[in-house]
Amino acid sequence: MDFKQYIASIPDFPKTGVLFRDITPLLGNGPAFHEACERLIAFAREVHADIIVGPESRGFLLGCPIAYALQVGFVPIRKPGKLPRETLNITYDLEYGSNELQMHADGIQKGQRVLIIDDLLATGGTADAVVQMVEKLGAEVAGCAFLIELADLKGRELLKQYPIYSLMTY
Amino acid sequence: MDFKQYIASIPDFPKTGVLFRDITPLLGNGPAFHEACERLIAFAREVHADIIVGPESRGFLLGCPIAYALQVGFVPIRKPGKLPRETLNITYDLEYGSNELQMHADGIQKGQRVLIIDDLLATGGTADAVVQMVEKLGAEVAGCAFLIELADLKGRELLKQYPIYSLMTY
Repeated sequence: MDFKQYIASIPDFPKTGVLFRDITPLLGNGPAFHEACERLIAFAREVHADIIVGPESRGFLLGCPIAYALQVGFVPIRKPGKLPRETLNITYDLEYGSNELQMHADGIQKGQRVLIIDDLLATGGTADAVVQMVEKLGAEVAGCAFLIELADLKGRELLKQYPIYSLMTY
Repeated sequence: MDFKQYIASIPDFPKTGVLFRDITPLLGNGPAFHEACERLIAFAREVHADIIVGPESRGFLLGCPIAYALQVGFVPIRKPGKLPRETLNITYDLEYGSNELQMHADGIQKGQRVLIIDDLLATGGTADAVVQMVEKLGAEVAGCAFLIELADLKGRELLKQYPIYSLMTY
């Protein structure tokens, strides 16, 4: 399947100079969304993931069908103020400014094999922050999976210790 | 399955006087999350849904596994500024202030049978706003499905024209 036909490329969104890859046409097409999930599920099985973690909110779109199919749990990574119980927090640098993410401290157990899922691998900053949270909790990163990888931004290098899967590369 | 054992009830979150129903323990438990999805999937089949719509971001958690299982599309409803193409917007009243939601104008086609999914049915304001968007696009609301219904807030009355399913009621 040529998945790229379901990605809309939008110049200058959300700001000038950025070419935004819009995944909503893929989500909205039943067979394409199903097949994309199947590919991610195959990778999740291959790396023996026993829990799925995904950052708010596009990581939820892919991470939850994979968790459902594997009959394993899903742990959401959220922006501050959304999770009501004890959290583990991480702050990391963005191109301009910084970003803070939280996960529930009891979301992952020691020794679990965690698959990190997001829609996009760009610089890898978000995925790397999630890796750090997972390892701080004594769990193992089984792999990282993405719908889209922006190869020029070299996020793959930041995550090179782990198996990485991306369905499409630009 | 007693699903309520996987819901954490947090007093005074996000503000004083609110008893927050935290679904993350359910998401994080593989068998419980899978069974919860199965119940929602059964309802989606029963109402012959051919597309799933869910509001940001907890609606994504349940809506996407259902879309995957039925091999139908998923249309995200987002807060302003997140969707890059032409949108349909709606503003509706909250207890204090108002909220604005957007969906892509081409997300739903005329005549489709739309299932609206969210984690929580409280006053029904969000679901009702989504109903209005769906109908404005000439599609049909096949039903509304929720993990949790807060019966005292009577959201069900606002949606009484449509089949409603909730997995748990408080």
